[in-house]
Amino acid sequence: MSGWSDSSGTTLDDYTGVYAQRVAGMTASEIRALFAVANRPEVVSLAGGAPYTSALPLDAIGEMLRDLIVNQGAQALQYGIGQGLPELREQICEVMADSGIDAAMGASPDDVVVTIGGQQALDLVARLFLDPGDVVLAEGPTYVGALGAFQAAQARVVHVAMDDDGLIPAALEEAIKATAAAGRRAKFLYTIPTYQNPAGVTLSEERREQVLDICERAGLLVIEDDPYGKLSFGGQAPRPLRARRRDGVFYLSTFSKTIAAGLRVGWILAPHAVRDKLVIATEAQILCPPHFSQYAVSTYLATMPWREQIKTFAQLYSERRDAMLESLADLMPAGMTWTKPDGGLFVWATLPEGMDAKAMMPRAIAARVAYVPGTGFYADGTGQQHIRLNFSFPPAERIREGVRRLAGVIEQEMAMRAVFGSGSGLGTAPSAGTSWPGADNPGLA
Amino acid sequence: MSGWSDSSGTTLDDYTGVYAQRVAGMTASEIRALFAVANRPEVVSLAGGAPYTSALPLDAIGEMLRDLIVNQGAQALQYGIGQGLPELREQICEVMADSGIDAAMGASPDDVVVTIGGQQALDLVARLFLDPGDVVLAEGPTYVGALGAFQAAQARVVHVAMDDDGLIPAALEEAIKATAAAGRRAKFLYTIPTYQNPAGVTLSEERREQVLDICERAGLLVIEDDPYGKLSFGGQAPRPLRARRRDGVFYLSTFSKTIAAGLRVGWILAPHAVRDKLVIATEAQILCPPHFSQYAVSTYLATMPWREQIKTFAQLYSERRDAMLESLADLMPAGMTWTKPDGGLFVWATLPEGMDAKAMMPRAIAARVAYVPGTGFYADGTGQQHIRLNFSFPPAERIREGVRRLAGVIEQEMAMRAVFGSGSGLGTAPSAGTSWPGADNPGLA
Ligand SMILES: Cc1ncc(COP(=O)(O)O)c(C=O)c1O
Ligand SMILES: Cc1ncc(COP(=O)(O)O)c(C=O)c1O
Repeated sequence: MSGWSDSSGTTLDDYTGVYAQRVAGMTASEIRALFAVANRPEVVSLAGGAPYTSALPLDAIGEMLRDLIVNQGAQALQYGIGQGLPELREQICEVMADSGIDAAMGASPDDVVVTIGGQQALDLVARLFLDPGDVVLAEGPTYVGALGAFQAAQARVVHVAMDDDGLIPAALEEAIKATAAAGRRAKFLYTIPTYQNPAGVTLSEERREQVLDICERAGLLVIEDDPYGKLSFGGQAPRPLRARRRDGVFYLSTFSKTIAAGLRVGWILAPHAVRDKLVIATEAQILCPPHFSQYAVSTYLATMPWREQIKTFAQLYSERRDAMLESLADLMPAGMTWTKPDGGLFVWATLPEGMDAKAMMPRAIAARVAYVPGTGFYADGTGQQHIRLNFSFPPAERIREGVRRLAGVIEQEMAMRAVFGSGSGLGTAPSAGTSWPGADNPGLA
Repeated sequence: MSGWSDSSGTTLDDYTGVYAQRVAGMTASEIRALFAVANRPEVVSLAGGAPYTSALPLDAIGEMLRDLIVNQGAQALQYGIGQGLPELREQICEVMADSGIDAAMGASPDDVVVTIGGQQALDLVARLFLDPGDVVLAEGPTYVGALGAFQAAQARVVHVAMDDDGLIPAALEEAIKATAAAGRRAKFLYTIPTYQNPAGVTLSEERREQVLDICERAGLLVIEDDPYGKLSFGGQAPRPLRARRRDGVFYLSTFSKTIAAGLRVGWILAPHAVRDKLVIATEAQILCPPHFSQYAVSTYLATMPWREQIKTFAQLYSERRDAMLESLADLMPAGMTWTKPDGGLFVWATLPEGMDAKAMMPRAIAARVAYVPGTGFYADGTGQQHIRLNFSFPPAERIREGVRRLAGVIEQEMAMRAVFGSGSGLGTAPSAGTSWPGADNPGLA
């Protein structure tokens, strides 16, 4: 290299030789590429994952923030400590105690680290535990942002199959064995046991104990990601894994779905010995989480009816879920299946045999409806036959209209395939791992 | 490994075998360990780096935030995009244009990435460019948080000597040569050219061009970190490096010192080709920066007299700098020297020959004054003879009292050394690199 501009003074912009190796693994998520088109007003977007912030008591929050800044602004606008505001960490422990993760289970404000949403919690775990080539076990499908964080750490994600009761214990044992047999090391199981993103399923009571036993026997850490556990539609979610075992389980959550995503406040409850390292890692990354957001969350929890507000969200989402399930049942062609979530934000649907959700996307957009193709939720290129549908953001009538449009697209696609066959270029039949619950092949070959 | 608890049910807490390799390089900064004691009310802390947030118009900001949430709360509390709010990125370009980084110099909102303060900007640069073992050239001393970010990426920092005019160009050339001769690769020069933290010095006009020429010839990227450029005491700071060259210079800044650190809003202006990778990297880390803080900054910039507020901060800090320089001149024993900053937050002082600032710290705390020992600002263990003193946070009379106490500690230390010699355990004479401007030995041995 000899300088950054050529003789004409135009930018060469060639940094390819300078990047770190980990950059090779960084690719834009499929979801991101979609958002530009999906957000056009004429499109019914079932592609998002946004909470319905308009349901918040905005006037009251506005007043609350004014008072906060007028009375405590000098602190709320100042630097804080890397671990996060002590008062907030205490309140986080109360929030967790509601779900059974309490002092008796060893939860203490001292072992909580406040993060920039659940995403930074995942990234910190990746930084702390993942060397290039390490294996992470994760549900197939799993949260796209977790894939991003693990891939940025150059780890390899091995998917473990699910069914309507969540992660399949036998598949987990299988994956652990296959990983070891391949001479690799699985560092942890990453799991979203409750109202999973994207699958909308929940790990059953019985399986929770089994999964914990399997991981404990294998000496495998468990990273439990629980952004949705409080968004139950009626029933009560099974207790989190961390409410059952204190050792070897890291608990990650966030206020993104229970208060507001724009605050970007999440947390990790970590084993005591690990907490110090997490703090050092987060300081190297962001110095400290925003006092501004932390004071806002802390004041909100202290002064506003936050449990009632979560019920308001859950009630709204449950109506929208009903709208989605009803219109799916009414309108979708035979051969199509989908999950029936008891909470959370998403339905996971499986297209009729041989169809490719990604290839169908341009035609869906032309029909003014958007979804997320399943491939984004797998690290191994599978998932072609699946789509994720969001019901938290669009109102019920938009959901019905979106499903109606989507049913039209799918029917047309099926008709074309019936006439021209699967070699028509309208959609390629995926070569492997197409059937929900997804690949249970550890993919270590 | 076989499970996470022993038979008695107590926590083993032994994760040592599970950590990623990079964790070995993560150590708590010396500054952090200090804060607990330094923040006791009876201690005059000259150890901080906090802006004086009480000088903000808190009532007006409170009203502004209430209106923001009442009128735009559903957006301000919602997810945003990874790159950051488009309106804010346009405003950031106006802020940079004031310093000569304008459209003619190729600055565009499209090439700005909003970050969690200047710290995340540093961390993203480290992630994008640093492989384990890569060399970063940086001033000696340099910002402790940059050392943290580079060390987390397992890079090796080679210090380049400074004097009262900033980085010494000949030392930079020397360091580049020595790095190459050692068979290593320097990925970039990290520099804080204006009102440097911790040294308080500014790279002269003439040297700016020289440093840019040297880096361009060597094909070395320049990471320009400029949190303090707008905090001038009277004179105008020389134009930033990025206002002189568009290619090969990344410009990092933050609103932490010009608006409020608790918002945690900073940015990178990156070459176009790199911007996409930065966005992917930040998404893997935090998904998106807080809309809440971004809307707050954007509204503040749009509706409040932000340039006047920066003048208010600068005026206040310049009075406090005067108080510090005057009392240092009045009270410090002969043999002690210090820098005379024209802006920013810090004075860098050099203790009399043979003294060790870290060893002296417990006695300073006993005398109810705190500073940061110089070693924290070097990656190579040097800096023992130096201390950093902050003048932005404590009021002038506290600064005078702090300097008075510190002078007493130093005099006592000198007297003890005169009686007992340097082997007394009162302070160890550092073995190398003790003279400001610090080590110019690339330390590659
Ligand atoms: C399973 C899961 N984990 C983590 C996150 C990230 O949460 P946050 O928005 O708080 O960063 C999400 C967000 O969609 C999620 O679905
Ligand atoms: C040189 C330098 N860079 C970056 C930062 C970090 O800025 P922020 O607080 O916005 O993360 C600081 C803060 O002290 C600094 O001094």
